[in-house]
Amino acid sequence: MGNLKYAIGVDFGTLSGRAVIVDIADGKELATAVHEYSKGVIDDYLPGTEIRLEPDWALQDPYDYLEVFKHTIPATLEQSGVDPEDVIGIGIDFTACTMLPTKVDGTPLCFLPDWRDHPHSWVKLWKHHAAQPEANKLNRIAYEKGFGEILDRYGGKISSEWFFPKAWQILDEAPDVYAAADRLIEAADWVVWQLTGVETRNSCTAGYKAMWSKTEGFPPNEFFKALDPSLENIVDEKMMREISPLGARAGELTAEAAEWTGLTPGTAVAVANVDAHVSVPAATVTEHSRMVMIMGTSICHMVVGEKEEIVPGMCGVVRDGILPGLPGFEAGQSCVGDHFQWFVENAVPASYEKEANESGISIYELLEEKAGLQKPGEHGLLALDWWNGNRSVLVDVDLTGMLIGATLLTRAEDIYRALIEATAFGTRMIVETFEANGVPIKELIATGGLPDRNRLLMRIYSDVTGLPIYIPEATQIGALGSAMHGAVAAGAVAGGYDDIVEASVNMARLRRDHYEPNKENKAIYDRIFAEYKLLHDYFGRGDNDVMKRLKTLKADILNVEEGR
Amino acid sequence: MGNLKYAIGVDFGTLSGRAVIVDIADGKELATAVHEYSKGVIDDYLPGTEIRLEPDWALQDPYDYLEVFKHTIPATLEQSGVDPEDVIGIGIDFTACTMLPTKVDGTPLCFLPDWRDHPHSWVKLWKHHAAQPEANKLNRIAYEKGFGEILDRYGGKISSEWFFPKAWQILDEAPDVYAAADRLIEAADWVVWQLTGVETRNSCTAGYKAMWSKTEGFPPNEFFKALDPSLENIVDEKMMREISPLGARAGELTAEAAEWTGLTPGTAVAVANVDAHVSVPAATVTEHSRMVMIMGTSICHMVVGEKEEIVPGMCGVVRDGILPGLPGFEAGQSCVGDHFQWFVENAVPASYEKEANESGISIYELLEEKAGLQKPGEHGLLALDWWNGNRSVLVDVDLTGMLIGATLLTRAEDIYRALIEATAFGTRMIVETFEANGVPIKELIATGGLPDRNRLLMRIYSDVTGLPIYIPEATQIGALGSAMHGAVAAGAVAGGYDDIVEASVNMARLRRDHYEPNKENKAIYDRIFAEYKLLHDYFGRGDNDVMKRLKTLKADILNVEEGR
Repeated sequence: MGNLKYAIGVDFGTLSGRAVIVDIADGKELATAVHEYSKGVIDDYLPGTEIRLEPDWALQDPYDYLEVFKHTIPATLEQSGVDPEDVIGIGIDFTACTMLPTKVDGTPLCFLPDWRDHPHSWVKLWKHHAAQPEANKLNRIAYEKGFGEILDRYGGKISSEWFFPKAWQILDEAPDVYAAADRLIEAADWVVWQLTGVETRNSCTAGYKAMWSKTEGFPPNEFFKALDPSLENIVDEKMMREISPLGARAGELTAEAAEWTGLTPGTAVAVANVDAHVSVPAATVTEHSRMVMIMGTSICHMVVGEKEEIVPGMCGVVRDGILPGLPGFEAGQSCVGDHFQWFVENAVPASYEKEANESGISIYELLEEKAGLQKPGEHGLLALDWWNGNRSVLVDVDLTGMLIGATLLTRAEDIYRALIEATAFGTRMIVETFEANGVPIKELIATGGLPDRNRLLMRIYSDVTGLPIYIPEATQIGALGSAMHGAVAAGAVAGGYDDIVEASVNMARLRRDHYEPNKENKAIYDRIFAEYKLLHDYFGRGDNDVMKRLKTLKADILNVEEGR
Repeated sequence: MGNLKYAIGVDFGTLSGRAVIVDIADGKELATAVHEYSKGVIDDYLPGTEIRLEPDWALQDPYDYLEVFKHTIPATLEQSGVDPEDVIGIGIDFTACTMLPTKVDGTPLCFLPDWRDHPHSWVKLWKHHAAQPEANKLNRIAYEKGFGEILDRYGGKISSEWFFPKAWQILDEAPDVYAAADRLIEAADWVVWQLTGVETRNSCTAGYKAMWSKTEGFPPNEFFKALDPSLENIVDEKMMREISPLGARAGELTAEAAEWTGLTPGTAVAVANVDAHVSVPAATVTEHSRMVMIMGTSICHMVVGEKEEIVPGMCGVVRDGILPGLPGFEAGQSCVGDHFQWFVENAVPASYEKEANESGISIYELLEEKAGLQKPGEHGLLALDWWNGNRSVLVDVDLTGMLIGATLLTRAEDIYRALIEATAFGTRMIVETFEANGVPIKELIATGGLPDRNRLLMRIYSDVTGLPIYIPEATQIGALGSAMHGAVAAGAVAGGYDDIVEASVNMARLRRDHYEPNKENKAIYDRIFAEYKLLHDYFGRGDNDVMKRLKTLKADILNVEEGR
């Protein structure tokens, strides 16, 4: 390989972007740098205006993304002392679907004075939830007009977070912005465009967020016409039909981008990727039967399969969506770390805070310590982990949380443990659904913020699922995955790799220690999981829609209040 | 009436006894005094020994009851300046079933050196729950052997708290104590015996706790024989068949008791009563259609009827049980004030404690303030109030608490309000069950500790039930009721009253202000109550016995742990 060669990965999160520079030979991280978005998540007023955003809106400023390149890449070069000439490739990953309208040259509409004061000209962040009416209309019309089969790949329902509901919301609420937008594009692809001057569309966001399939392409124009005649040609007018596989080279670094980053013009830039998906090869997974769980505020479950099975209640199955040539499955739980944070902030008594302070540990650690002394089943509680709806396998945002089994002796650590177990049961439900539909799962690979923060949680997940859990060595897994894609974009000829499997074998590693399920605990959890399933189906599959009725009632009450 | 005349009521609670002295003419309280039991509730070690009590045991020392007389009555006389000659009657009320074994002269076995070291010789407090195996056997055998009809008056099930399970436990576990006991008697009747030298048995505890009925008497000897041959003659050997109606004169104060109390020998002493039941006439209720709720850690619901209906799931119906000549119904909820205390101690975050401290109010007041700003239905939650099982109408201690509808936006005050509402739904379930079975309820009269401490709770109860709620003027309602019974024991001829209705008309009063249901809120609660009922029946009537299975699993786990 001669000289040592390096790749840079840039991971764009919800509040900041992070770059790492890694050694191509072994994936070793030499330096990392973070840049926080100056405007963060925009959800109250449009910047520089007094325009109040409606509830459920969440915007970002694309300027912040460019700043990430300008601050983090030079910093990693400086820290590591790597010669820019030896950096052979760059990859990026992004939250998705995070999308924006631009002019034909890629200029975001919100950079233009004419449009800057219009909320719909800004970036709609993944968690912009205001396109729910459009998502509802889309799902209804798809079934009414005979396009239901397209939705099968997505568990039967398109989320309001995805591309076409967001695009349609622009058309519905701001037809002038829609008309002025030459392009509608994922921020992931937009930043690659900024680096290379080339507009590409990656197969991951196209597949998981924009209803594209490798064999079928985008839905037919008649489908979009059925939604709204103005949408009929949205793909040809505002998007692209050519979709680039992951790991492909999107282009080379332009002179301008080289100046921003301190890198050499012509450096290979990989096609964009999504944070969760790019983590899969970085977590050593390039084959079927091994599920990657990105565990943070929520969990993303990623699996590659052998065949493109239809698995009910999944977020999506996309050929080439995670690894080239293989169908990639994505499932998810919308409330995991968020759940524990909610609990600690809202339901742990002052005495625990005092005890934690006295012991010099966090409340999480105190609860983990206390809950860790228990055997499965000892607290007598059972929860449904739907504090933020159910993403998989019920795909229903209107479900809510439930706790059963409380007595006057129930303590905070009991509830805490029950909530952890509930999320583990949610994962087991996903695993079993995959298995029942021809997608085997033999082990779990856990990454994200939670695995290192909560060992009890990992033990419980292993005992509940009966599966071993491995942890990748890399902590910046998304950025590493992006760097690996950068190395593939460069190719073996330049000192990189010819495919992501090769990159993964060389650059990704698991830790030695891992979690093995305890058989005795597993047997107890089998009994409790049977109860979970019973309640899951009772409340989740229409036997008793009390959760939805309470939500409707709540909305009615609040609407009447507003109206006063 | 000549001179002003007075009566004294003594109310024996779980931790202390309280005396009041009241004006016979208008019930006005002149003085009150409390004495805490030196040994309180004995639930760890038998006093003066290293004998460890088993779980679920709860004993008391009868010596503490005598101390109440010796301390409180002289104190009320001194404070009020009343001439003991003008005190014409005494009444007492007690927790029940609180029972003890004595010799034939009334000496408690636990006063005797031979028996003092034996736990079964002490007083078994109402909340001694260790006779559950005997209660289970009794209920099973009653149905198997054709005595099921007797249980109909008690909602189909005898509680482990009641007289015969407790007596049977003595026989089962300590046949020598059982043999040495000449009498088995309610503490209520025992203290009257100590005052008068006369053994009487009151119709209230006999009816509600010892399966006695005015028309049928005690269950037949064959029934007891079916339980255990040694129990065949328990009534004739250890009890009495003569049952005294409430308000009757049990006897007169002995010289010894006059010395303890500072009263005049020969003062009339009423037949004993139970705390909840004695409160009914003190709360102005002497007729049907008005339900008295004693609201504290739990709720006792007391109603007098016109006819002796069988109401499923009630704690009991007893003719003469509350008022002479009328059937008295008792129902209950086992977890009300206890529930809120559990919540505040276990599930309210530190920030609320801080806020309450800064505002100089209690956490309860802070939660009430925050929850009071909401409209019904606004929090989107629903709970089943079974943190301590369900007393009425399901009569099932193995049910547990449930909360549904939680989201990441759920706050402590939301849950607090939902728990209050859950207990109100529990009361509505009881009210509706009465009404559906021929016992109409047109208004509620609330007493006990809660009504003055939590106005939001009262508003919610009124809105949920759709009934007005009145509050008695007297705060020491049990002691007042006892004093009223003392006045009736004395009789009109001595300056008292000839019956409890007359005493109630003269001595009991309601406050002017009361709670009227808000129609709009009631309509919303009707919708939520329909959901409560659905879940109540689903989890409570056998559709899904998950609560019991989780409890069984928990017990299994803990047993295995113990065994290690």
